[in-house]
Amino acid sequence: MNCNLAVIKGDGIGPEIVTEAMRVLDAVGEKYGHTFSYTQILMGGASIDVHGEPLTEEALEIAKKSDAVLMGSIGGNTSTSPWYKLPAQLRPEAGLLKLRKSLGLFANIRPAYLYDELKKACPLRDEVIGDGFDMVIMRELTGGLYFGERHTEEIDGVRTAVDTLSYNENEIRRIAIKAFDIARKRKKHVISVDKANVLDSSRLWRTVVEEVAKDYEDVTYEHMLVDNCAMQLVNNPRQFDVILTENMFGDILSDEASMITGSIGMLSSASLAEGKFGLYEPSHGSAPDIAGQDIANPIATILSAAMMLRYSFDLDKEADEIEKAVKAVLADGYRTVDIMSDGMKKVGCKEMGQLIIDQIK
Amino acid sequence: MNCNLAVIKGDGIGPEIVTEAMRVLDAVGEKYGHTFSYTQILMGGASIDVHGEPLTEEALEIAKKSDAVLMGSIGGNTSTSPWYKLPAQLRPEAGLLKLRKSLGLFANIRPAYLYDELKKACPLRDEVIGDGFDMVIMRELTGGLYFGERHTEEIDGVRTAVDTLSYNENEIRRIAIKAFDIARKRKKHVISVDKANVLDSSRLWRTVVEEVAKDYEDVTYEHMLVDNCAMQLVNNPRQFDVILTENMFGDILSDEASMITGSIGMLSSASLAEGKFGLYEPSHGSAPDIAGQDIANPIATILSAAMMLRYSFDLDKEADEIEKAVKAVLADGYRTVDIMSDGMKKVGCKEMGQLIIDQIK
Ligand SMILES: [Mg+2]
Ligand SMILES: [Mg+2]
Repeated sequence: MNCNLAVIKGDGIGPEIVTEAMRVLDAVGEKYGHTFSYTQILMGGASIDVHGEPLTEEALEIAKKSDAVLMGSIGGNTSTSPWYKLPAQLRPEAGLLKLRKSLGLFANIRPAYLYDELKKACPLRDEVIGDGFDMVIMRELTGGLYFGERHTEEIDGVRTAVDTLSYNENEIRRIAIKAFDIARKRKKHVISVDKANVLDSSRLWRTVVEEVAKDYEDVTYEHMLVDNCAMQLVNNPRQFDVILTENMFGDILSDEASMITGSIGMLSSASLAEGKFGLYEPSHGSAPDIAGQDIANPIATILSAAMMLRYSFDLDKEADEIEKAVKAVLADGYRTVDIMSDGMKKVGCKEMGQLIIDQIK
Repeated sequence: MNCNLAVIKGDGIGPEIVTEAMRVLDAVGEKYGHTFSYTQILMGGASIDVHGEPLTEEALEIAKKSDAVLMGSIGGNTSTSPWYKLPAQLRPEAGLLKLRKSLGLFANIRPAYLYDELKKACPLRDEVIGDGFDMVIMRELTGGLYFGERHTEEIDGVRTAVDTLSYNENEIRRIAIKAFDIARKRKKHVISVDKANVLDSSRLWRTVVEEVAKDYEDVTYEHMLVDNCAMQLVNNPRQFDVILTENMFGDILSDEASMITGSIGMLSSASLAEGKFGLYEPSHGSAPDIAGQDIANPIATILSAAMMLRYSFDLDKEADEIEKAVKAVLADGYRTVDIMSDGMKKVGCKEMGQLIIDQIK
């Protein structure tokens, strides 16, 4: 298979961690007979420095023509970086918003997986963790309260602000289909999260999810209220396989879920469009304070590349290979500084990449 | 002081737990020279059984004329109870909504406190718990997305649902004042939670909170984004004193916070109106499955009575006395079945009430 990738190395630790992910992809390609062609584009601060804007039309066109986008992380220190003296629409993050919108990335997937070797970093007790948890949060990314009409006005001298939460059945159906599709590649269980006892949008959400579920007789599903879900993530994270939810609930719950793993440097993410196209990036930020020191943890980005193989190219075996390699390296006791603990072997970014490659060869 | 209370014993375990709370109040009254006069009113299933509706106008009038309302819990088993065959506006919970609205209860306070003796029930690791946490969540209860305009319609044959999130500065100011007032009675720190990087209502929220904060130079405050707060509750609950937030965020975060205590049978709550009026009730439900067996945990209701003394009557010393008595009984190893653990002494509802009274005498 020949995979044509747009690559955004980005800012801070971005270039270092993406380089390792590309090397891992090449190792997988060599072993399984795939070619990855990379076209690098600038986005975020790196693009501002060169072009004066966070994402040029040319860069966007290259991304659109690619099969998938692999990304590092963007942005800098918001208090000290000159990028944050610019108007909001010219700051690094505006590039990402423009990219997501232009590419129609409506489905955000964030796995929350507990590595047995990193159990001690999990804030939950061993009894709660049990034999670990492995869930993905499927969050709708382009609708709901974050994208609705909003305004602030004075009504009879009283300042009043209004935000609007709107979903139509098509927006709900396409994300529900993604969730059920992915459940099929996993433990075949979907928990759809809403607030259907109060919100109209949640009641429509629930109705459409039930319609979609009819086409997936092999996948079980249930509904859960968002406040209960926030409790259950802490109480019994093992019950979750795929969590399907709308934009704002997904924002809150996916962050909560990432925190209960205790190791955000390990967490990948994907944002998918209709069809197979997607953008893959680590859940963590650009960590400008440790950039260029070869100490960043490349694993989240490497696992994002594995997600890309799985979701954009249906290369499940190859994705498994990467995930297994990461587990093997952890089991051998290698750690970057962010996940370091007593008795383990501390390695840098490049060395961690190489160790994972050595497992694949 | 003479305190004129309306009492709603309610359904399920309600009558048992409220009875113990009243006995505790009487013990405090005897010791400190206060009189509590109780007028019992029916609400919920108990009212449906007698009057065919969950809250009569007569009952509501009595509540309005009282100084404060002490409540147990309402509702039954939603799958088996005949109350849930009724139309929504005649079900038990409709009585509570009507009561809250009629009494203008806009400020919901839920403490999340970790008792040292119940540490093992907390799902978080000992290192995360440290020397415990003690926070209250101040949730706006009558505005925002849960009370906005909503509708579902077909637009060009596509079902579309819309909910509206609206806040005006007066609604925000009155709840912010409550939060800063209560912080003054505590550790003098407010964390206001919003999504000001996206929502207009959150930006207005932040502005008004900052205006209110100017009148409280002795109280420190900061802003926190809701997704970060969902993480921080798990990561470091010790950092919180008073969390101030809007209705929906408060719904999610207060449930998450209650779960990290690990013992919901211990958690009180208050819903306050302008001035000193409030309704006080346990955070837990009516537990119809264990009703009438004298095994329910009355502590959440007893602590709600303590909150009533503190917030409606400014009887801080008397409230402290109840809270200290509860801690002493726990320290002595007495437990109701819901919080029972190895080596402890199991007691029933009445006996737990009596043990607390014995501490006060
Ligand atoms: Mg977030
Ligand atoms: Mg709730």
